Amino acid sequence: MRTDLQAALAAIRPLDRSLTGRGQAHIDNLTKPKGSLGRLEELALQLFLIQGGEPPQADPMRIYTVAGDHGVNEEGVSLFPQEVTRQMVLNFLRGGAGINVLAATAGAQLYVVDAGSCGGGYDEHPRLIQAKIAPGTANLAKGPAMTEAQCLRALMLGVSLADRALADGVRVLGTGDMGISNTTPSTALYCAYLGLDPQAVTGPGTGLGKAEVAKKAEVVRRGLAVNREAVESGDPLAVLAALGGLEIATLAGLILGGARNRQLVCVDGFISTVAYVAAFKLCPAVADYCVISHASAEPGHAEAVRALGLKPLLDLGFRLGEGTGAACAMYLVRSAADMYTKMATFADAGVSASTE
Amino acid sequence: MRTDLQAALAAIRPLDRSLTGRGQAHIDNLTKPKGSLGRLEELALQLFLIQGGEPPQADPMRIYTVAGDHGVNEEGVSLFPQEVTRQMVLNFLRGGAGINVLAATAGAQLYVVDAGSCGGGYDEHPRLIQAKIAPGTANLAKGPAMTEAQCLRALMLGVSLADRALADGVRVLGTGDMGISNTTPSTALYCAYLGLDPQAVTGPGTGLGKAEVAKKAEVVRRGLAVNREAVESGDPLAVLAALGGLEIATLAGLILGGARNRQLVCVDGFISTVAYVAAFKLCPAVADYCVISHASAEPGHAEAVRALGLKPLLDLGFRLGEGTGAACAMYLVRSAADMYTKMATFADAGVSASTE
Repeated sequence: MRTDLQAALAAIRPLDRSLTGRGQAHIDNLTKPKGSLGRLEELALQLFLIQGGEPPQADPMRIYTVAGDHGVNEEGVSLFPQEVTRQMVLNFLRGGAGINVLAATAGAQLYVVDAGSCGGGYDEHPRLIQAKIAPGTANLAKGPAMTEAQCLRALMLGVSLADRALADGVRVLGTGDMGISNTTPSTALYCAYLGLDPQAVTGPGTGLGKAEVAKKAEVVRRGLAVNREAVESGDPLAVLAALGGLEIATLAGLILGGARNRQLVCVDGFISTVAYVAAFKLCPAVADYCVISHASAEPGHAEAVRALGLKPLLDLGFRLGEGTGAACAMYLVRSAADMYTKMATFADAGVSASTE
Repeated sequence: MRTDLQAALAAIRPLDRSLTGRGQAHIDNLTKPKGSLGRLEELALQLFLIQGGEPPQADPMRIYTVAGDHGVNEEGVSLFPQEVTRQMVLNFLRGGAGINVLAATAGAQLYVVDAGSCGGGYDEHPRLIQAKIAPGTANLAKGPAMTEAQCLRALMLGVSLADRALADGVRVLGTGDMGISNTTPSTALYCAYLGLDPQAVTGPGTGLGKAEVAKKAEVVRRGLAVNREAVESGDPLAVLAALGGLEIATLAGLILGGARNRQLVCVDGFISTVAYVAAFKLCPAVADYCVISHASAEPGHAEAVRALGLKPLLDLGFRLGEGTGAACAMYLVRSAADMYTKMATFADAGVSASTE
């Protein structure tokens, strides 16, 4: 399994920057002042480079919302009972959740993936991928959340999701998560990967009060201490196995697979960004293929994004996960591709260029 | 004409806040943690209140991109020659401009309005409204840009555009501008209305260098000095006539008309926001009906928005105008309405609520 992962990582290529001049020249010739569409221009250029210098296409777009449960839930780190993960999977399949609505509005396909929710299987559904690796992780505050084998399976599941999307012609991927208590493993991973302080970055998740946040920070601190060997190993895989979650590892694999497949990946908020960090630690070239969709309202996100030197596309105060921020970002990716391919140039339109 | 404006202003009603509890309760019952869709929840509530407590609907949506020329162009305040206003109107009609593409991607109708471009009329076009009040304004650095009568005609043109949209069932309006040199009158208006300093808020517009920005600030300062009587009158209409533009006054009227018609108005960037300020000075209740779509990259915009106590929805580094930022915001308005009307509630979905 390590061999499969190594092969996937080895196949990820940094972008060919020699195409930048040609893409930028086209963007600069469109009938607008240079640079005046700001981040849409950056997105269009990124997509142009990812797609190897072809006029960029955003569609079809697909979001995978991946579910997993967390042993650390027994520490009382969430306001919602653990069975809500499963209830929300059913809600996704019935079309009633935030991500159903926002994916539909954005014109993105939505697939739900069970990577590790508690309980058994689900009834078959055309938009459900049943790939349960375990019914939840172990409690990271007491030991490793996953074995290395489980973590590798989740990573390769994520790679396979990117491949399945590629087979269906998907150009742009979105990451989504569902897992009660999953801000706790995410916070622990940010601390381990980026050297952040649990006290400083632990937040309210779905709505904890101040005292409960302090208790959660203590759980994170215990998790880092009990898994010290993995944390200090410098091995991104060992860290992910010790502190992560099955949905987080699957999303890290989806990001790796997307990069390997030359798909743009819209990384959702707090949980998905830590999956991005894991993928980035495994292979820094994934940065070329990703955009951080939005600034999560979960306070540790700003800290983490700053440490990464990245700037989220949107800042709408979202803290829902599921891929909801990615859905909104994907709309902007489509706008960027349309800008590149559908606007007239100064010459075409008979518009005088600036005297600059 | 003053009487028509007074009648329009008198018909604008503040929102009925007694409906807030019902709208908020619905939003809080949707299957997501409370508040976790941030600004989409605020937008949904605003739309619910604007539409009088009905499940909010965003469509149809319409952007009016209004063109006008500016006598102050002769002071050398733009990198683009004045004929570009007309060339861009033709580009809009052929579908090649940024706003054509972004309005289409957002699913918003686009109408182009000639309120005051230089030169004569245009060939007929189903999406062109020819309502030229004058072929450009006078040079504000030498005297009033418009007569009060011209300014009133432009305001009432804007009101009529909102009415025309209402007749077509439009729920959400977007404002757009096209006018070479129009950051200069806009800057002058921000200074006059909000007491800002020309030195501090004058920016590069479509791409001026440092020395040219200083020269432009001096033009703004001269405009404020020569029009001191209007600036110091405390009469928002006199200020708008002295320092504004025909497209700016038309957009102010569109905002007033939208508020009167209970349409949500997505206010575009630097130029449109000053039209909003003019409308707000004429009738503060317009605030209830507007959203500032995006933070313009034109530096004075941040200053002005701060002075108004508002927070733009998007921050994408746009500085194009035309309604491009409004188009992106309108997509989010649709997302908000869909969230309100299409998500399941906890009870419907059989999902456990939080223990909060």
